Amino acid sequence: MRPPPSAAAQALNDTLARHHPAAAACLSPLGRSLFFPRGIPSQSAEARDCPINATIGQVTDGHGHALALPAILSALGGLDGDEAVLYTAQGGRRDLRERWAAHIAADAPGAPVDISLPVVAAGLTHGLELAAALFAGPDTPVLLPDPFWGNYTAIFERLHQARVIPYPLVRDARGPAGWLDVPALRRAIGALDRPAILVMNFPSNPLGYSPTRDEVPELVAAVADSPQPLTVICDDAYQGMWWEDEVYAHSLFHALAGLDPARVLAVKVDGATKELFYFGGRVAFLTFGAAGPAAQALEEKGRAIARATVSVVSSTSQAVMAQALADPTLPAQQATVRGHLLRRFQALKRALADAGLQTLPFNSGMFAVVRVARDPEEIRQALLREGVGVVALPEIGALRLSYGSVATEDIPRLVQAIARHAG
Amino acid sequence: MRPPPSAAAQALNDTLARHHPAAAACLSPLGRSLFFPRGIPSQSAEARDCPINATIGQVTDGHGHALALPAILSALGGLDGDEAVLYTAQGGRRDLRERWAAHIAADAPGAPVDISLPVVAAGLTHGLELAAALFAGPDTPVLLPDPFWGNYTAIFERLHQARVIPYPLVRDARGPAGWLDVPALRRAIGALDRPAILVMNFPSNPLGYSPTRDEVPELVAAVADSPQPLTVICDDAYQGMWWEDEVYAHSLFHALAGLDPARVLAVKVDGATKELFYFGGRVAFLTFGAAGPAAQALEEKGRAIARATVSVVSSTSQAVMAQALADPTLPAQQATVRGHLLRRFQALKRALADAGLQTLPFNSGMFAVVRVARDPEEIRQALLREGVGVVALPEIGALRLSYGSVATEDIPRLVQAIARHAG
Repeated sequence: MRPPPSAAAQALNDTLARHHPAAAACLSPLGRSLFFPRGIPSQSAEARDCPINATIGQVTDGHGHALALPAILSALGGLDGDEAVLYTAQGGRRDLRERWAAHIAADAPGAPVDISLPVVAAGLTHGLELAAALFAGPDTPVLLPDPFWGNYTAIFERLHQARVIPYPLVRDARGPAGWLDVPALRRAIGALDRPAILVMNFPSNPLGYSPTRDEVPELVAAVADSPQPLTVICDDAYQGMWWEDEVYAHSLFHALAGLDPARVLAVKVDGATKELFYFGGRVAFLTFGAAGPAAQALEEKGRAIARATVSVVSSTSQAVMAQALADPTLPAQQATVRGHLLRRFQALKRALADAGLQTLPFNSGMFAVVRVARDPEEIRQALLREGVGVVALPEIGALRLSYGSVATEDIPRLVQAIARHAG
Repeated sequence: MRPPPSAAAQALNDTLARHHPAAAACLSPLGRSLFFPRGIPSQSAEARDCPINATIGQVTDGHGHALALPAILSALGGLDGDEAVLYTAQGGRRDLRERWAAHIAADAPGAPVDISLPVVAAGLTHGLELAAALFAGPDTPVLLPDPFWGNYTAIFERLHQARVIPYPLVRDARGPAGWLDVPALRRAIGALDRPAILVMNFPSNPLGYSPTRDEVPELVAAVADSPQPLTVICDDAYQGMWWEDEVYAHSLFHALAGLDPARVLAVKVDGATKELFYFGGRVAFLTFGAAGPAAQALEEKGRAIARATVSVVSSTSQAVMAQALADPTLPAQQATVRGHLLRRFQALKRALADAGLQTLPFNSGMFAVVRVARDPEEIRQALLREGVGVVALPEIGALRLSYGSVATEDIPRLVQAIARHAG
């Protein structure tokens, strides 16, 4: 059942009842529940003018400019009118979909598993929304890593009335293989009493954690032992941003797609946003771990829900991406930007340790979460006044730092500012 | 209540039950209902290689190439990396949203009415989906013009479980003011027993009809007299394509937005797709006819549902569009392409009359509907074999012709081919 609107949503509904009674009377139950959350986008907007802005999950030079790949810039330097202006086919450009299927296959740690042709989505969020529409109905249990990206709640709970069940992602102390709380995940899966969804997000937002090589077997086994049919959505947005040697440097999708199709369906959501550092492109993919007729049936359902929600995806962005993927030097270009991120990761790790700040485990992605003893929102406000933007996560008493948008040389200042206020 | 899956959807579900039991068990009720309809996109795909392709609602030179505006091409010729690669704000680029608000105001036939700041959507379909999410819940009556664009059913009925009620758009014989069946619409509105949605789509797809100046007052009065609160969604995709002198050459949104806010909420969905002939851009807008706090509350709810479905919209496409809108010669460029369409409209009208083919009324947009005595699907197949692509509308015993993608000189051949098979 849909819960009553939150106070923030109810305030908007009251405004409409006073100022536009027809609008108030016509809102759907979903419409009544909607408000714009005071989450990361709001906090990023407030930090827009900060000289040090560690709020937003995109990669810049630290001074507001894109660290775009030459392959993307070269495509943007002169697009073909027909390609960029006319519609692409439903489901996306065929050549792009095939290239992305090859890109996924190339990531497989062993022999490639059977996958569907990827369906193009209008960004990672849309890819997740397509997966949610297909598999999340009223009261579907959705196991989400805790802490998780706030928009998951909007997608699974608000849009589809699914029942969110958080599972703790990491433990308080490192285990023999790594930090993941696999026993807790195993218990959460074991408690399922109906078909369900499990969201896996590695490297994770907001934690910046990925499993170590030693953690993968027990993680996959926990999924394989599910007592109920389970759809595992791999939110692979930050794929490729792996910074420590022990990190398992592949998507878990391949291992999960190889499990028993009577038990587990693996779904991969990934795209150009972070892998090609093409944040504004809004090109992502929805891919199913399935073979033959099942892969075709799922691909058709994916295309159908994409048609009903956005029809097709920007031809212009798809043209940019297709051109970039055809550039043989693309992997080297990605490695260069990842090199910048790795240096920032190392600088941040060192500075946080030097300052004695307590963090949650992070080894990948572009975020780190710092535990603070005082109210995170108060600290955020104080930092804003000093020109330092961070995201407050009051629900876990912490701050999220994005090092994607902070230059390496600014990282010590960022950490010192936090240490001054968090102490 | 959600009806049982159609035969086409059930065939996919059966395939999954056999080949991927976990996927079959995990599908949501919506997921179970999905299949890719054998509608316009499928029929367009089949006509891809036809020398005369009148299937698709986009404007080309008739030989597969875009008739792109120079302002769009010039933007595509060299985009700024930061603008195209980084995220835009939630809700869209502020400058673009303000320019579009001014564009809407400039269309007002009298003094501009109060409107919200337009929210950027990922194409017209997404704009409609945002409006549907806000106002269409289970069993919400949705009055749709008959015949209507097939994707409306997917959006309102399949996604949101609303109850579609078609109203006849035009009469069999012309009335004193024009062809619209306003009495039928008035009856449909009068029969409403709860808050409802009315979709108005002018110029219409598939008919290509817009109200005459004389029809507008009675149309607006029928809405004003609604016994129930009514959200009127103006699907203005084809705005500006007005070909006959008697056509009312404005959106109805302005008149509807001026009605009593205790009775009527006007919502406008429009965009670059057809107005700027930028089909692949996927930039559209959702705008509310409301003032002050009500406008702000609705705009916030619009941004919230956009965030949960796609997050932000392609920065690349938004950059192209913002640059094009800043070009002072844009209106002249639009007029040139519209001039091509007008000549095709005139050629088609003449050729259809000469061939003695019976059409539904058309005076605008880029479509015409031809009644046929034989099975439209059979005729479509026969025409395909001759290299002529048209869309079959079996539910009304007709063919839809898009003259957006047929060169003027090919129109007589198109009509002759139809006449040969339809006779």
